[in-house]
Amino acid sequence: MKLPKAAVERIIRNAGAERVSSEAVEDLKEAIEELGMEIAEDASEMADYANRKTIEREDIEMAVTY
Amino acid sequence: MKLPKAAVERIIRNAGAERVSSEAVEDLKEAIEELGMEIAEDASEMADYANRKTIEREDIEMAVTY
Repeated sequence: MKLPKAAVERIIRNAGAERVSSEAVEDLKEAIEELGMEIAEDASEMADYANRKTIEREDIEMAVTY
Repeated sequence: MKLPKAAVERIIRNAGAERVSSEAVEDLKEAIEELGMEIAEDASEMADYANRKTIEREDIEMAVTY
């Protein structure tokens, strides 16, 4: 568990959902955790590439764009 | 604020980051909230399309796939 289910449920509710099954919340949570991890891993590689030990905002931006 | 910053920071730490700037956490948080909202909106359309008022797991799966 990385993201709290309640926070993910808020995202679905904001998208205009009338009702949402618990499994759907769980699945969305997994999907965005996975996307988040992919971006984070790419950002980490970008920081390495730039010879930094700290992941900066620009690494996230590069990771999202490329 | 939808996702807690601490949870997003855990995702970056798990990706092997030694140090992460606060702005990078904020940017990743925004990026995955946005991706989450896009998936949620698509899932909501999938549920409509299937004549359901409840977003189910299969709607998230369809939204992630298509």
